[in-house]
Amino acid sequence: MADYNFGAGPSVVPQEVLEVIKREIMNFNHTGLSILEISHRSLDFQALISEAKNDLRALMGIPADYEILFLQGGASTQFMMLPLNLAQNKTAYYAISGIFGKKAYEEAIKASQLENIDVVSIGSTAHHHYDRLLKIDLEKIDFQKAAYLHLTTNNTVEGTAIFPENLPESHEVPLIADMSSNIMAVDYDISKFGMVYAGAQKNLGIAGLTVVIIKKDLLSKDQVLPSMLDYQVLAEHQSMYNTPPTFAIYVAGLIFKWVKAQGGVKELERQNRKKAKLLYDYIDQSDFYDNPVYNINERSICNVIFRCPHQNLDVEFANEAEKRGLLSLKGHRSVGGLRASLYNAFPVEGVRKLIEFMKDFEEENK
Amino acid sequence: MADYNFGAGPSVVPQEVLEVIKREIMNFNHTGLSILEISHRSLDFQALISEAKNDLRALMGIPADYEILFLQGGASTQFMMLPLNLAQNKTAYYAISGIFGKKAYEEAIKASQLENIDVVSIGSTAHHHYDRLLKIDLEKIDFQKAAYLHLTTNNTVEGTAIFPENLPESHEVPLIADMSSNIMAVDYDISKFGMVYAGAQKNLGIAGLTVVIIKKDLLSKDQVLPSMLDYQVLAEHQSMYNTPPTFAIYVAGLIFKWVKAQGGVKELERQNRKKAKLLYDYIDQSDFYDNPVYNINERSICNVIFRCPHQNLDVEFANEAEKRGLLSLKGHRSVGGLRASLYNAFPVEGVRKLIEFMKDFEEENK
Repeated sequence: MADYNFGAGPSVVPQEVLEVIKREIMNFNHTGLSILEISHRSLDFQALISEAKNDLRALMGIPADYEILFLQGGASTQFMMLPLNLAQNKTAYYAISGIFGKKAYEEAIKASQLENIDVVSIGSTAHHHYDRLLKIDLEKIDFQKAAYLHLTTNNTVEGTAIFPENLPESHEVPLIADMSSNIMAVDYDISKFGMVYAGAQKNLGIAGLTVVIIKKDLLSKDQVLPSMLDYQVLAEHQSMYNTPPTFAIYVAGLIFKWVKAQGGVKELERQNRKKAKLLYDYIDQSDFYDNPVYNINERSICNVIFRCPHQNLDVEFANEAEKRGLLSLKGHRSVGGLRASLYNAFPVEGVRKLIEFMKDFEEENK
Repeated sequence: MADYNFGAGPSVVPQEVLEVIKREIMNFNHTGLSILEISHRSLDFQALISEAKNDLRALMGIPADYEILFLQGGASTQFMMLPLNLAQNKTAYYAISGIFGKKAYEEAIKASQLENIDVVSIGSTAHHHYDRLLKIDLEKIDFQKAAYLHLTTNNTVEGTAIFPENLPESHEVPLIADMSSNIMAVDYDISKFGMVYAGAQKNLGIAGLTVVIIKKDLLSKDQVLPSMLDYQVLAEHQSMYNTPPTFAIYVAGLIFKWVKAQGGVKELERQNRKKAKLLYDYIDQSDFYDNPVYNINERSICNVIFRCPHQNLDVEFANEAEKRGLLSLKGHRSVGGLRASLYNAFPVEGVRKLIEFMKDFEEENK
C-alpha cells in the first residue's frame, strides 16, 4: 500500500516531479552536470529561473507591475523584512488570527528596534484560541500613516482561511498576505495585494525557497538597508544578488509545470475543495470527531484540523494511522490534536483512505 | 569522456554523493517518503541534522564551546548578521583583501544604519587589484572598543588565501572569518576564531545552506533583534526556529560522510595542495600563462587564477575548453581571466586533463 503524507510542510511532492528529479539528478539538461552542481550564472540556470518566474506569473495571473523574488529564509524572514522595507516612519497594521500572524506582528515589533516603525495590532482572536478569523475593522486604520495591513490567508496551525470573497476591500492601504500554506491552492487575485509571500515547502516545492510577489511601486529606492534585506536590491539583481538556492528553484519550476499540467490554479482549487469537503463532511456527521473551527465558511481547504473525544486518543490515532501508511497526522505541537494537510499534490485517494481509517478507529474507540 | 566542473560555486559534488541522492530521492531511510517531503520535526530528520552536526564537529575539530548553526541566505546574509549581533555599541574591524571582503565591510556599514556600530577598515589591497593579502597591523585596533576583526580565509575571485600559519595572532580581539571557499579544504584550528561562516555550495554541498560556527560566549542574550537575525535565538532553537533547508542539510550530511571516507580534512588538504601544485607548476614554467598572485605563499589551493597573454585568448580558451568537457573555467565576471576551482570533490585527473588542454591551446596560439 502506498503511503500518504499529510505533513503540513515540508510536505508531499508530486510523484511525477520526483521522477523528473531522479532522472535529472546526474545530468541536467544534457549539461553533463547535476542540477546540484550547475552555476547560477550559467545560461542553463538563467533559462530555468526566468521560465520559473514566467510560469508562476502566468499561473497566478500576476500583473506586470509586480516583481517576483525567489529568496531564502522562509516566511519568518519576511516577518522582519516586510516592516524594515515598507514601514519606515510609518505604521504597520496587523490583523491576528493565528500563531503565525501573531509571530509576524511580534517580529515587526522587534524590527521596530532597528528602525522608526510604529506597529499596531487591529485585533486578535487569541482569546478564542484562534478558532475563528478576526473581523477586520478598517476604521481602526489611520490611512495617513498606514504602511500596510498584514494578514494570513491560511492559518496552517488552526485550520482557518480567508477566502478571496472575504478579503477586506481597502484601496487606501496595501494589503500584505502571508500565503505560505494556500498559495496556488486557492485562486487569489494578486492585484488586491501590495505584496504576498510564501515559504515554498507546502504548495511550491521544498524548504529553502521563499517566494515574494511585490508591487513595484512599494519598492523603496532611497532607504539604506543591508543588501540581503533590501527588496529593491534583490529585485534589481533579479533574485541573484548572491547565489540563490538553485535546487529549490529548480523544484519550484517543476511544480509550476505540474500545476499547469493539472489544469492550473482554479482547477486545483476545485480539487482541493472536493478533497476537503469529503473530510469535513465525514467529520460533521460523526459524533466522535470534531473540527474546532467556529465559522464553517472560514474552514481551510489546505489544513483540516480535527480531534478525537480525548487527547490521549489523538495520540493513539496518529500512531495507529502511521502504521496504516497515513503519515504525519499529528497537529502542530502548540495546539495538539490532529491535522490533515491536503495540499495541491495530495491525492484524493489519500483522503478516502484516511476516512476509512477514521471509521475503523471510531468503531474501536467509541 | 567525463566532464570536469571547474565552477567556483555551485560546484562539483562527489559522484558517490550524487548516487546516494539518486537512490534515496524516492524513499529516504525507509520512510516511504522522499527526503524532499519529510518533516523537519520528524525523528528521521532530527537524527539526520544532529548526525550532520556531530560529523562536522568531529571533522573540523570544533571545540564544545562553539555552536554550529545551519542557516540560509549565503555568506552575504552573514555580512550583516555578524555586525548586528556582535558589534552593537562597539567597533567592527575589517581587513580587506578581495571583493568579498570589501562587500562584508560595506554591508557592515549598511548595518550600522540600523544599530550603533562603528565600522573600520584597517586597510585594503584594492590599489593592487587584490593581487595580494593585506598585511594585518594589529596596532590599528583599539582593543577596548573592538567587537572583532573580520577577514576572508580564501579569496574566491582573486585566488589568494591566508593559510593557518599566517593568521594574525591576537587574543585580545575575536577573529571572524568568511571561510566560504576553503572551509574543510584547508585544516584550520577553529579555536583561533570567534566565528567562522561559509556558504555550502563550494566544499559543503549545495547552494541554500550557510554554516555558522560561533563561540558560545559571543552569543548575546540581552540584545533585541528579529528572530531570524539573532544568533542566540537560532542557537536556542538548534537551527530549527523555522523550517530549515532540509534537503541542503541532507546533502551536507552526505558530504561530511564522504569527507570522513576520504580520510578527513587533513588528507583532503594534502590532496588539494597536490592538485593545485600540479597546475601552478605548469603555469610557472609556461611563458604563455600567468598567475597574477604577487606572493607565492598566498596562492589559494582552491581557486587557481590564470590568464593568457591577451584577454580575447581568455575567452577563446574558456570556450574551447568547454568543448573538451572542461567546464566553467571563465574567471569571475568582475575580473575576467580564467579560474580553475579545485575544491575537495574535484578529481586530480581533471587537473591533468586541464594541463593537457593548456599545452594544446598554448601550442596553437603562442
